[in-house]
Amino acid sequence: MAKCLYVCSQANLYEILGDIMSKEPNTVFIGRNPTMNYVLAVITCFSREETKEVNLKARGQAISTAVDVAEITRRRFMKNLKVERVNLGTEEMPREEGGTRAVSTIEITLSKSP
Amino acid sequence: MAKCLYVCSQANLYEILGDIMSKEPNTVFIGRNPTMNYVLAVITCFSREETKEVNLKARGQAISTAVDVAEITRRRFMKNLKVERVNLGTEEMPREEGGTRAVSTIEITLSKSP
Repeated sequence: MAKCLYVCSQANLYEILGDIMSKEPNTVFIGRNPTMNYVLAVITCFSREETKEVNLKARGQAISTAVDVAEITRRRFMKNLKVERVNLGTEEMPREEGGTRAVSTIEITLSKSP
Repeated sequence: MAKCLYVCSQANLYEILGDIMSKEPNTVFIGRNPTMNYVLAVITCFSREETKEVNLKARGQAISTAVDVAEITRRRFMKNLKVERVNLGTEEMPREEGGTRAVSTIEITLSKSP
């Protein structure tokens, strides 16, 4: 991942991609940024020769964006990508007024075929 | 599916579930109705002894709701359900001003273990 961030930095993409890519190696966290920023983050991760898989993680409303990112990257930019796995889950998030609420999550693993 | 609709009708659920369940057997189309209506539709489908799998289909923003429906049904109401498959895809939808636009889709297959 250190190398992946270095590549981004060289391409002057660090500001866009820093937040998205800095927490886990080869993982893109989907939030409220424009969809194409995440597509760019996925392509940047795969630009390292040794990267075979990239995970997209999202929760709540961002789940739809995560599916968009996977589909746009695969159909428009990297035709050799496939959806390797999709895991659904639930996380307990703290409420402001106390207690927790359940939020759905998705993890999409994209893999690059040779 | 005919039988599944009959069950709904008997329980006075036809109005709620008619639109959601009437197009393909054992398939629930997720749209803009309240999430719990879809959860009820899934439980109703599985209430038939012979139903082993139910598909949830959604596109665009409704994809997040589809994941919510799968997770709520599995965690709160039917602990013996599991997510059998998740397929992602893209559909071309006609634009009002002509041409088409790509919309992401999801199909979640839930299966009941004995």
